[in-house]
Amino acid sequence: MADATSGVNNHAEQRQNGCAGRQTEGPAGQVLAVLVLLLETVWMQLRVWAEVFRGVYQTIVPPAEKSVAGEVVLVTGAGHGIGREIALKYASLGSTVVCMDINEKGAAETVRDIKALGGAKAAAYKCDVSNRDEVLAVAKTITQEVGPVTVLVNNAGIMPTKPFLEHSAEEMKRIFDINMLAHFWLLQAFLPSMYERKHGHIVAVSSMCGQMGCTNLAPYCASKFAVRGFMESLAVEQHDLRPDMDDKVRFTTIYPYMVATGLVKSHTVRFNGLMPILNPKVVAEEVVSAMRRNQTEISVPGWLFHFNRFVRLFPGSVALMVRDFLQVRISGE
Amino acid sequence: MADATSGVNNHAEQRQNGCAGRQTEGPAGQVLAVLVLLLETVWMQLRVWAEVFRGVYQTIVPPAEKSVAGEVVLVTGAGHGIGREIALKYASLGSTVVCMDINEKGAAETVRDIKALGGAKAAAYKCDVSNRDEVLAVAKTITQEVGPVTVLVNNAGIMPTKPFLEHSAEEMKRIFDINMLAHFWLLQAFLPSMYERKHGHIVAVSSMCGQMGCTNLAPYCASKFAVRGFMESLAVEQHDLRPDMDDKVRFTTIYPYMVATGLVKSHTVRFNGLMPILNPKVVAEEVVSAMRRNQTEISVPGWLFHFNRFVRLFPGSVALMVRDFLQVRISGE
Repeated sequence: MADATSGVNNHAEQRQNGCAGRQTEGPAGQVLAVLVLLLETVWMQLRVWAEVFRGVYQTIVPPAEKSVAGEVVLVTGAGHGIGREIALKYASLGSTVVCMDINEKGAAETVRDIKALGGAKAAAYKCDVSNRDEVLAVAKTITQEVGPVTVLVNNAGIMPTKPFLEHSAEEMKRIFDINMLAHFWLLQAFLPSMYERKHGHIVAVSSMCGQMGCTNLAPYCASKFAVRGFMESLAVEQHDLRPDMDDKVRFTTIYPYMVATGLVKSHTVRFNGLMPILNPKVVAEEVVSAMRRNQTEISVPGWLFHFNRFVRLFPGSVALMVRDFLQVRISGE
Repeated sequence: MADATSGVNNHAEQRQNGCAGRQTEGPAGQVLAVLVLLLETVWMQLRVWAEVFRGVYQTIVPPAEKSVAGEVVLVTGAGHGIGREIALKYASLGSTVVCMDINEKGAAETVRDIKALGGAKAAAYKCDVSNRDEVLAVAKTITQEVGPVTVLVNNAGIMPTKPFLEHSAEEMKRIFDINMLAHFWLLQAFLPSMYERKHGHIVAVSSMCGQMGCTNLAPYCASKFAVRGFMESLAVEQHDLRPDMDDKVRFTTIYPYMVATGLVKSHTVRFNGLMPILNPKVVAEEVVSAMRRNQTEISVPGWLFHFNRFVRLFPGSVALMVRDFLQVRISGE
């Protein structure tokens, strides 16, 4: 079991050959191992403090936004709502934008709006992202016609809203096919060329429903939690298996609160000023800004992410109390 | 929008008619609204403190374990590993155990082991939990032959272990079909009768991979995050839509660290004493104990859940440092 990682990656092996591997070398080796461990512990604590200070500093002075001029940005669900606004934002920053949507007309309209900006490059592609064969075929066409995609924004999603027991089987399958499995197909289509070119960025639009369970949204929440786990795994896996890519291929996950895109049919909350339903344009601004700052994850509004994390330090019953107090209600009718 | 929840639940409406609804009644109404809000805030703070003290108290003196004698407990994946041990444990506590597995022989063996305990009631059912029609048909047979299921333990799962880009499409679909969508079919089969009889318990065996992203396990982590989001949503939805059921139908989610069931092909960690690979019997004991104490979620070992929550208070880069330091490596080879 000691050498079990062999064949998986050399990097892990190198780390295994650190202090832990020296335990068998007799008393001198053991003393050395303890010393190395002590030094490593102190060194890690220093690095943790450095990261904390960096975090606090960047909260006050956000890092500069990188240029996205010349990037080939593919946005799924670009025919409507947040997707359209994201596409328009990237176009305004000089990116070439590939607008993908199952709704051909919507995607074409977004391209028309982009071209109206003057000088911006954009193309529309019809694609059902839940259909793997279609994704792979369209991906090939895009690479040939536009060039290799360097920024992939997985935004397409559906949100059936009703009590769990009223969801049909077809509906629940579709939620997962579109909201989660589509990410698998799109990543397998576009991530390899990002690794080859040592340049790329994957953006996933999850939801605050990927951070907390919600009434009338059980399968949807499940799919958005899945996106969160998937994106976190990808970043961790890259750090372990391709550490040289850590500053070359980036991952950003966005957790918006409810957005007025037609997905939310009705929404009530006690303090409307504190948690208003969001404008897609505002969310798109935050998505692009977080991506340009290479942030790993943010919520929109930003405080919700930290508030949720704080509430979760208390027993689970406290989260229910807070929800009762805020009276958040989302329904599909 | 103010009355948007109508038709969804009366409970929400009653809450809406609290102080927030009185804002339109002129100056006197506004003063009253502010007073009610103040009182509610103070009241909530007292309740939060009470919950914190209860939490601390229960960490020192765990709540009593409820009896499960006479319960009809359905365990999926009962032919092997943790599922078999869970089935044996419930049988030893006087439950009637329904052992479900796609592997008929394994399920029959578990039933034979249970019957060897003497006096225990058990039955084996072959079922592919990813096949919705089969689940619904077998559920009907079980209800007729054994009686209404009162405890459902969703334990069946698969864990393909390899870098994300090496996963086949079929594999990723199967991970979601078995690890997540099966929960939908089983819950839709058994939850309604629990609500009718005002008595039931749903237990989901997720994984620490549902709490943190892991290398070589991206789609698996996604599926286990999904289970977590689903279970949390179910509890929240019940609290909102069927508050009278909060102490009658319970939800428990378990996050075990790596277990020696054959799913983990190889596992290395720097401090083996701190995070040893787990014995299925130990995990089963913890699963049944958490369920009998009506706990919402626990990890095995228990400290890992809290440790993970603590690390997540720091910037994301710190979690990567901790992982590098602990040198956890899981692979399928």
